[in-house]
Amino acid sequence: MRALLIVAHGSRRAASNDEVRALTEQLRPQAETEFGYVACAFLELADPLIADGLEQCLQAGAEKVILLPYFLSAGRHVTQDIPNIVAEFIAAQPGLNIRIAPYLGTAPQLPTTLLQLVIN
Amino acid sequence: MRALLIVAHGSRRAASNDEVRALTEQLRPQAETEFGYVACAFLELADPLIADGLEQCLQAGAEKVILLPYFLSAGRHVTQDIPNIVAEFIAAQPGLNIRIAPYLGTAPQLPTTLLQLVIN
Repeated sequence: MRALLIVAHGSRRAASNDEVRALTEQLRPQAETEFGYVACAFLELADPLIADGLEQCLQAGAEKVILLPYFLSAGRHVTQDIPNIVAEFIAAQPGLNIRIAPYLGTAPQLPTTLLQLVIN
Repeated sequence: MRALLIVAHGSRRAASNDEVRALTEQLRPQAETEFGYVACAFLELADPLIADGLEQCLQAGAEKVILLPYFLSAGRHVTQDIPNIVAEFIAAQPGLNIRIAPYLGTAPQLPTTLLQLVIN
């Protein structure tokens, strides 16, 4: 079974974290054909942290986890922090297959998604 | 004429700002039917800042500017900083019609946009 883990930065502002959780819920029905488990996790400041999120994917029975960075640009979090956390997790759980997907900012549909907010 | 101003946070990392500029270029052809001028601006750390971006819209001949916050959550930047800068700008240029569009994080297509990064 494949799991999808959406990873956001995390905020001191609870409502921002809840926005990520709500998005995850909203996305789940569309994801279910491909993913048996869909959840979110945070780099910092909110629960679950990435390692705990990965652990939950394992406990749900995932053989493969696709981690989707919910970030707009390829800053240090995307290029270093997330890969480092994943590498550390894999070192401790060598059986797990984790792939980091391209981050949101690279999504080909992003221009269209933005324009649909302003064209009506 | 209507102008579209995409407003991102701005980063010390030049490449992150360039990602926003590239997205703006990418989006322009699709936006041209509705907007005579399409540009980006930054809340801080990169040029042009929002007030300068709005000024450029005016100079390009815009009677109305739609400001689109390129932000994922409704933190202080979206709820206070951007509206305050816009209010200040309008106070100094009472003729200008500026509307702040919903921020990216609220886009109805966001779940689909995310999923298309991982389903193939």
